[in-house]
Amino acid sequence: MNNPLLLQRLEQALGHRFSRPDLLVQALTHRSHSALNNERLEFLGDSVLNCSVARALYDAFPDLPEGSLSRLRANLVRQETLAEIAAGLQLGDVLRLGEGELKSGGFRRPSILADALESLFGAVFLDAGFDAAQHAVRGLFDPLIARIDPKASGKDSKTQLQEVLQSRRLPLPEYRLVDVQGEAHDQHFVVDCVLSRPTLTTRGTGKSRRAAEQAAAGGACEALQQAAVRK
Amino acid sequence: MNNPLLLQRLEQALGHRFSRPDLLVQALTHRSHSALNNERLEFLGDSVLNCSVARALYDAFPDLPEGSLSRLRANLVRQETLAEIAAGLQLGDVLRLGEGELKSGGFRRPSILADALESLFGAVFLDAGFDAAQHAVRGLFDPLIARIDPKASGKDSKTQLQEVLQSRRLPLPEYRLVDVQGEAHDQHFVVDCVLSRPTLTTRGTGKSRRAAEQAAAGGACEALQQAAVRK
Repeated sequence: MNNPLLLQRLEQALGHRFSRPDLLVQALTHRSHSALNNERLEFLGDSVLNCSVARALYDAFPDLPEGSLSRLRANLVRQETLAEIAAGLQLGDVLRLGEGELKSGGFRRPSILADALESLFGAVFLDAGFDAAQHAVRGLFDPLIARIDPKASGKDSKTQLQEVLQSRRLPLPEYRLVDVQGEAHDQHFVVDCVLSRPTLTTRGTGKSRRAAEQAAAGGACEALQQAAVRK
Repeated sequence: MNNPLLLQRLEQALGHRFSRPDLLVQALTHRSHSALNNERLEFLGDSVLNCSVARALYDAFPDLPEGSLSRLRANLVRQETLAEIAAGLQLGDVLRLGEGELKSGGFRRPSILADALESLFGAVFLDAGFDAAQHAVRGLFDPLIARIDPKASGKDSKTQLQEVLQSRRLPLPEYRLVDVQGEAHDQHFVVDCVLSRPTLTTRGTGKSRRAAEQAAAGGACEALQQAAVRK
């Protein structure tokens, strides 16, 4: 760790040269390593990431309603996607972990990798402002955004999911009602869409059971689409 | 509506003069009025608001852990706070609503006011970039942030809430377990903290019932604090 060449390569991948290298090091420091770690940077970076991806999607899909933009974003910034990007940047090789985490393979753990990536965006934001952080985010996410099919988002999500699964000869999804909250006139449904192959569960909420199922199916469609992009 | 003087006053309050006044008008247009409404701008504005407030809190409270920053932010950007700020800006006088919403008093509805405020931040972001939007957010939120007591955030939230309520001779909170999710080794608890006076329910989640209760109590403390600030 703290190999100058690896850090330089990371800066190149982010498109940002740190004027305060201590921020770069802090972003790579897990809480198991020291008190001065990346937890606060992660809080900041998470919001920078959300805002940058929101803007990218807003510009890229002028015809999509906010619900679709919101689902697309949720899928782009979920832990699994972030961890894969982090692995691509070989963040595991430059993380600073405590003894215990090192021994138990923390450098491969998706949550630790994803948090470190968000922390890096926060560190760039502090080092050089929002536009520099947005540039770093866009460099990594634009390729994923470019592969999103906006037409697919116009279709009814349950139908769309069914079509995708059938075209791949995979089993159809199961919808499970998880929770119903609120009074009778203002109910709030929570539904899981459960796929057995690939193993995937996405959750949707809505004011009717059908709306919650659609939301859950939408999440599954986007997860499958992202998975295809990353192959 | 579209009174040039009112719009000018609004621009002054945001500290931003629009070079594209159409964005300002769109931000004030509810979906009941036209197809070109503020829903997409709200999606963008929500993320700008979250990011700007995150940065403000990060800078203002260098000693607070991310959990406290997160709770403080959730409280600052919740609908009730946004609607009060929007009412202070007299957004109700410049909203563009459809017939039905006009008749049913939509210009006073907290959700419509809060959404329009977020949309305005999104419009400034599009018009002049993140820094201009952040400036608008900070102008409105810095006074609230300045009144937050960072010492209070260091204390155990349940204790703190109890002390606040006792000092005001109000009834103690009730904690209600709402949901437990996940497998035995990776459970996720959802708890509501219910106050009878003032009537307030805040929800907390955590990996133990106690952690969820603390989170819910933290939300209640901050809600009470904000309510006090706004008086």
